[in-house]
Amino acid sequence: MENNFRQGDFTLPGEAGYEQLTLELAKKWGADVIRDSDGTKLSDEIVQAGYGIYSTICIIRQHNAFAAAHPDAQQQTFLCSDPVVATESSVVIHPLDGFFDEQFQVNDSSDALPYWQVYDRTANEEVPKENWTWENGAVTVKNVQPWHEYTVSFLAWRIWEEINMYNHTTNNWTSEHLRQLDPRHPLAWEYLQKWLRDWCEQNPDTTVVRFTSLFYNFVWIFGSDMRRRNRFTDWASYDFTVSPAALKAFEAQYGYALTAEDFINQRKLQVTHMPPTAHKRDYMDFIQTFVADKAKVLVDIVHEYGKKAYVFYDDSWVGLEPYGKRFASIGFDGLIKCIFSGFECRLCAGAEVPTHEIRLHPYLFPVGLGGLPTFAEGGHPEKDALDYWRSARRALLRQCVDRIGLGGYLHLTIGQPAFVDTIERIGVEFRKIKALQQAGPAYALPIHVAVLHTWGSLRSWTLSGHFHETYMHPLIHINEALSGLPVEVKFISFADVENGALDGVDVVINAGRAGDAWSGGDAWKNDQLVSKLTEFVYNGGCFIGVNEPSAVPGYHTFFRMAHVLGIDLDTGARICHGKWTYKLDKGLRIQEGSANLKDKEHLYLTDGQAKVLADAGGVPQMTVNHFGNGLGVYMSDFQVSHQNTRMLLDILLCAKGLTDKAPYISGDCRVEAAYYPDSRTLIVINNAAEYVETTVSLPDDNWLDVALSPMETKEIIL
Amino acid sequence: MENNFRQGDFTLPGEAGYEQLTLELAKKWGADVIRDSDGTKLSDEIVQAGYGIYSTICIIRQHNAFAAAHPDAQQQTFLCSDPVVATESSVVIHPLDGFFDEQFQVNDSSDALPYWQVYDRTANEEVPKENWTWENGAVTVKNVQPWHEYTVSFLAWRIWEEINMYNHTTNNWTSEHLRQLDPRHPLAWEYLQKWLRDWCEQNPDTTVVRFTSLFYNFVWIFGSDMRRRNRFTDWASYDFTVSPAALKAFEAQYGYALTAEDFINQRKLQVTHMPPTAHKRDYMDFIQTFVADKAKVLVDIVHEYGKKAYVFYDDSWVGLEPYGKRFASIGFDGLIKCIFSGFECRLCAGAEVPTHEIRLHPYLFPVGLGGLPTFAEGGHPEKDALDYWRSARRALLRQCVDRIGLGGYLHLTIGQPAFVDTIERIGVEFRKIKALQQAGPAYALPIHVAVLHTWGSLRSWTLSGHFHETYMHPLIHINEALSGLPVEVKFISFADVENGALDGVDVVINAGRAGDAWSGGDAWKNDQLVSKLTEFVYNGGCFIGVNEPSAVPGYHTFFRMAHVLGIDLDTGARICHGKWTYKLDKGLRIQEGSANLKDKEHLYLTDGQAKVLADAGGVPQMTVNHFGNGLGVYMSDFQVSHQNTRMLLDILLCAKGLTDKAPYISGDCRVEAAYYPDSRTLIVINNAAEYVETTVSLPDDNWLDVALSPMETKEIIL
Repeated sequence: MENNFRQGDFTLPGEAGYEQLTLELAKKWGADVIRDSDGTKLSDEIVQAGYGIYSTICIIRQHNAFAAAHPDAQQQTFLCSDPVVATESSVVIHPLDGFFDEQFQVNDSSDALPYWQVYDRTANEEVPKENWTWENGAVTVKNVQPWHEYTVSFLAWRIWEEINMYNHTTNNWTSEHLRQLDPRHPLAWEYLQKWLRDWCEQNPDTTVVRFTSLFYNFVWIFGSDMRRRNRFTDWASYDFTVSPAALKAFEAQYGYALTAEDFINQRKLQVTHMPPTAHKRDYMDFIQTFVADKAKVLVDIVHEYGKKAYVFYDDSWVGLEPYGKRFASIGFDGLIKCIFSGFECRLCAGAEVPTHEIRLHPYLFPVGLGGLPTFAEGGHPEKDALDYWRSARRALLRQCVDRIGLGGYLHLTIGQPAFVDTIERIGVEFRKIKALQQAGPAYALPIHVAVLHTWGSLRSWTLSGHFHETYMHPLIHINEALSGLPVEVKFISFADVENGALDGVDVVINAGRAGDAWSGGDAWKNDQLVSKLTEFVYNGGCFIGVNEPSAVPGYHTFFRMAHVLGIDLDTGARICHGKWTYKLDKGLRIQEGSANLKDKEHLYLTDGQAKVLADAGGVPQMTVNHFGNGLGVYMSDFQVSHQNTRMLLDILLCAKGLTDKAPYISGDCRVEAAYYPDSRTLIVINNAAEYVETTVSLPDDNWLDVALSPMETKEIIL
Repeated sequence: MENNFRQGDFTLPGEAGYEQLTLELAKKWGADVIRDSDGTKLSDEIVQAGYGIYSTICIIRQHNAFAAAHPDAQQQTFLCSDPVVATESSVVIHPLDGFFDEQFQVNDSSDALPYWQVYDRTANEEVPKENWTWENGAVTVKNVQPWHEYTVSFLAWRIWEEINMYNHTTNNWTSEHLRQLDPRHPLAWEYLQKWLRDWCEQNPDTTVVRFTSLFYNFVWIFGSDMRRRNRFTDWASYDFTVSPAALKAFEAQYGYALTAEDFINQRKLQVTHMPPTAHKRDYMDFIQTFVADKAKVLVDIVHEYGKKAYVFYDDSWVGLEPYGKRFASIGFDGLIKCIFSGFECRLCAGAEVPTHEIRLHPYLFPVGLGGLPTFAEGGHPEKDALDYWRSARRALLRQCVDRIGLGGYLHLTIGQPAFVDTIERIGVEFRKIKALQQAGPAYALPIHVAVLHTWGSLRSWTLSGHFHETYMHPLIHINEALSGLPVEVKFISFADVENGALDGVDVVINAGRAGDAWSGGDAWKNDQLVSKLTEFVYNGGCFIGVNEPSAVPGYHTFFRMAHVLGIDLDTGARICHGKWTYKLDKGLRIQEGSANLKDKEHLYLTDGQAKVLADAGGVPQMTVNHFGNGLGVYMSDFQVSHQNTRMLLDILLCAKGLTDKAPYISGDCRVEAAYYPDSRTLIVINNAAEYVETTVSLPDDNWLDVALSPMETKEIIL
C-alpha cells in the first residue's frame, strides 16, 4: 500500500539548466506539476516532459518600459515625515528625510498635493494650508507654535516593487529594479489585460497560471539608515493601495473624503493589530471590491485560454482576502499559501476555493526569511523541513489541503541527500493524511471554540503574516496550538456575538494586549457584549482570557470580564487596595505547562474566589474561576509549546467536563492523535525529536500503548 | 569637645513601673524631655525629675462614654458594596458584606440615606432612587439589566478608632475598643474643647502637649475575610473626614453638592497616587480649612495654659498638611514625624514650624510595622536602629531637625545593651550634625532639582506614607536618593510650571506610571506644559523621566516628552514599526548602577539619536539624549541603592557639566560627604557595613584620602 502514496499532488520548482535534476527529483518526490519561480525559467525539455506546468506571473511587475512611459501609472502610498521641533516661528521639513530614496519619490503632482497635510503633532491639529508652502524639496511652515512638533504627510510614488527590493537587498540581486503598475490607472489596466492575453497565447504549455499575487503588496517601508532599514511592515495593511484616483473614487462611492491622516494616524499608521477606524473599514471594503472585480477579469482571461488560475496568498495579496465575502466570486481555481506553521495550513485549507495548496518551507534559497543560512554553509535544510512539517502535520491531520510543493532554486538540493529524502518522506505522509480525510473527516471532540477578536472570520487563524512576524502576540500562539487540537474552531468578531455567534459555542477565547485588535479595545465599551458573554458563561460556557482580555479603561474593572475571570489588572487606582492572599491550587487536572507564563505585574484577584494555578512574584498569573455553571480562565500569557498546547487542551476538556473522559488523547504532551472513523484508522504522531512511549485513550475507558520513534507518524487500524 | 554632644534635644519615652530605667536611660541618652506613649503612663517620680514632659493626647479618642451617649457624633465614611451580578430582573445587595463589622456600621439615618447611591457598574450609570429600597439590612434593586453588575454606595459609622484597631489586631490588645468623635458635630466639639481645658488643668507638669494627632485618620478599611484583612489603606486620603454635615457645609460653601461617587470613584476610591478630580481638590481644601480652624482653637487653649503644642504628623493627621497654605496659621510649636527614611527627615525638617522633631525607629515595640520581631526573640534592634540611621543621617547632613526621640515601651530595652549603646551613639552624631548646621548650612552644588508631579509642594518629599508603603513607586526611591544629595531640591506641580517654577531650575524629574499622580496623567494634555519643558531643555536644562514619564494617550507619542527623551513607549500601534538598532554607550561618566533597572517592554528609540546606557532583552532601559543645549535622560525604573543614588548624582553632574569638577564628592558610592564652610568642617559618612578606603574631591582639583570603618561618621577640619 505504501507505494500508493509516492506520487501526485506535489508541485516541484523546475530550473532551466538543471533538466536532469528536475526530472529526477520530480520522480523521487512524486511531483505531478512543475513550476517556475521568481527568478527561474523552465526549459522546453522540462515543459514538455508530460507534467502539469505552473507558471508564475506577477501581473503588476516586469513592465518597466510601460512604467517609464507612464510614470503616473506607478503605485503610491502616504508617508509622514519625521517630526521636527519648532524653535522659532517657522519650521522647514524635508518630507523624505529618513526614507529609502530607491523606494520612494515625492508625488507633488497637482492631483496629489491637495492630499498633503501638515500637522502640529503637539496640539494634534492640522495646520491650515495657507500656512505652509512646498518649494525646492522642502515644506516651509510659518506661524508655528515654538516648541511644538510638526510633520508633513504626503503622497509618494513607490518606484521599486517591494518583493523585488527585498530580494535585491537580501539576496544581493543586481538586476534592474522592477517597478509596479497600479491597475486603477486606465491605461495600465488596458495594458495589463492585453499583456495577460499575449502571455497566455505565448505559453500554451502552461496548465496553471499562478498569480504571485495580485496588485498591491502588503506595506513595507524602508528607511535610509541601515540602523533601521525596515521602518514599517504589516502583512495585512492596505496603505499601498492608495492614490488620488482611489481616494476620489472612494469619495464618490462612500460620500465622504478620506484624508492623509486616515492613513497616517498620528504617525502610527493603521496597523492590523489595532482596531480599525470606521474609515479604514470602509476603505478596506472599497479596495476588496476593486481587487475582486479586477481579479475576476484576469481570471476570466486565463480561463478563456483553457488554463487554470491559482493565486499565491502572500506578497501583493492585499484586498484578495480569502476569508472576505468577495473571494469566491473571483473564480480562482486554487489558493497557494506558503507556510511555516500549523495555523497557516488551516488558513489555506479553510478558504472557499477548489484547490488548496501549501508551499512548504524551507524555500530552496541560500538564506531563509529569518536571515539564517538554509542551503548555504552552516544550514541544515533537512532539519528545517522537519521542524516546519512538525507544525504542519498536526494541522493537516485536522483539515488537510489538496497539494503541497516547494519553491526556489532546485540546484540548491545538490549535495543535500538528507533534505531530498526528508521531502520524499513528507510527501508520502502528506498523501496518506489526505487520503484518510478524503474517506471521511477526523473525529473531533464535542468542544466548539470561538476565538473572539475585532476582525472575526476575516482574520481566521492568522493575525497579520507569519508566526515569526507576530510571535509577540499570545493569540498567534493560541491559534497555532488550536490548529492541531481535536476541537472545532471558529473566529468571531464582537459584532458577531450580538448576532448569535455564541450559539453552539462551548469556549470563547479572547487574547491580546489592552487596546489592540485581538483584545478588542473600545469594542468592550458595549455593555451588550459584556452581558451576552456573562450570560454565556453563567449558563455553562467557558471564557478564556489571555494577557489583557476584554480590557478597556473607564469602568470599575479594567477587564470587563473580571467578574467572570475573578481577576483584573490594576491600572494604578487600586495600588492602595489590599490584595487577596491565596494558595496555589493543584486540584485541577490541567497540565502543569504554565512555566512559560509571563511575569505580569498589577494583576489582582477580584473577590478572592478564583483558584490560582500559577503565580510569579506573588502575583497570580493563571486562574480558574467558577461563575454560575461556567468557567472563567485567565492566563497572563500563552507561548506555544508541547506542554502549553496540552494545557490549553486540558482547559478545554475541563470546561466541557471531559477531563479523563475524552478518547484519542495521548498521555504525553509530545504525542498527539487523530482518529478517522470512516477508515477506522488512528494516526499517532510524535512531535518530539526523541523516542516516546505513552498511551492513547480510546472510547469506553480503554487505551492503547504506543511507542514512537522521533517525529514518527504511526498508523493504527482500530 | 565630644562631651558637648552628649546631652539635649532628645525625647525619651518614660514608663511607669520602670522609674529607675527611665532615669538611667534619660541620662545615658542625654534626654531633656520624657514622654508617655500610646498605652503607657508616666509616674509622678518621672514627671517630677526635672525633665521636660511631653504628654500624648489623641483628642478624638478615649471618649467612649460621650460616644455612647451621642452615637451620631462618631466619625463616618463612604463605603461601596462588592458588586453583585444580576441574573434576573432584580438584585439584592447586603452593603456591609465583606467589611469588618467591628469597624463599620451602616448609617441609614434620615440625613445619610439621601447620599446613598446604587450603581449599574456595567453601564457606569446610577440607578434612579425609585428603583431601589433599603429594608431589613439589604438593598433591593428592581428593573435591573440582567448580567449587569450592581453596587450600593453608602455611609457607614466608623465605630473603632483605626489606630486602636490596629494595635488590638496586631499587638493583641484586649482593652475596650476606642471610638472616635467628629469635631464637626457641635456637641462633640464643645465637649472636646472642655475636655482639653480640663486636661490642661489636670496636667500642670506637662510642658508640651503632643497631639497624636488631630481629628481624622488616614483611610484604613478592614475586611471580614482574613485572606484580605486590609481592604484599603492610603495615608494621604481624606475619605474618613466625610459626614452628611460635612457634605452640606461643603455644598453651602462651594455651590455644588458632592455625591458618594465622588468618593467611591467606581469602587477604586480616590487614592493619593492618582490625579485628583476637581471635586476632590475642592473637598481637600474644604477639610484643610476646617482642620486648621479647629486645630487653632485647641492650640490656643494649650497656649493659654502656658504649655507648648506639638503635633504628630501621622495617624489622624488628615487635613493638617504641613506643606499646605494653612499650616503655619494653626500656631503649632513643633512637628513630630516618625521616620524610617531620609525623605521623611527632609519632610519634617522643611515644614514651617519652630521645632522639628523626628521619632527614630525602631519603636520600642515587640513587633515592627512590617510584622517582623524587633524587641522580641529573633530581633536585632541595634541593627534596625543603625539601618534607619543610615538613611536619616545623610538627609540630616543636608537639612537637620531640632530634636530626635524614641517611642514605645522603655522596658523592652532591658537586656539589649547593644541597642542602648547604639542610640547613645546616634544621639551624639545627631547633636554634632545639628551644631554644624546651626553654624551655617552645608555646601550645596549649584544644581537645582525640581521634582514635577500632580501634587507639587503639598506632597514635598513624601508620596503617601512610609517607604515600605510606597516602594512600588520609583519616585519614592528618587526622593530617598535626593534626600541626602548635595543639591537643592523642590517639588513643583504642573500648574507651577506655567507660573515660572522652572526659573533657576537645572533639572526636572518626572517619575511615575502612566496616568498616576506622579507621572501626571491628563495634565500632560496641556500643550503649554510640554512647550515650556521643551524650551527649558532646549536652552540647557535636563529632563529626567522614569518609568512612564509624561505619558498620556491620544498623541503621536505616548510620552509627551519623547522628543526630548529620544525614547517612547509603544502602546500597541507601533508593533509593526521597525526598531533602531543601537550599541550600548559607555562614554558617559555615569556610575554603572543601572543593574537594578526594570526589564520594561515596549520601549523604542524615537529617532535613534539617544545614547543607550543600559538595556534588557534588546530593549533600551536607560538613555541619554542631547536635545538643543540640554539633556533628556530616561530610566525604566529607579530603585534606591548606593550605586543608583550615585548614578542619579552622576546624571545631575553630567546635566550641569560638572562631571569630575564638583568638590566634596567621594570616589566610592558607599561613602558620601557634606562640607560646612562656616565651620570649615567636612563630614564624611560610610553608608556601608564594611570598611571603605576612598577619596573625597576638594576644590581646585585637590582630593583627600579617607578610610572609614563600617557606618562611621568622620569629621575633618579643612
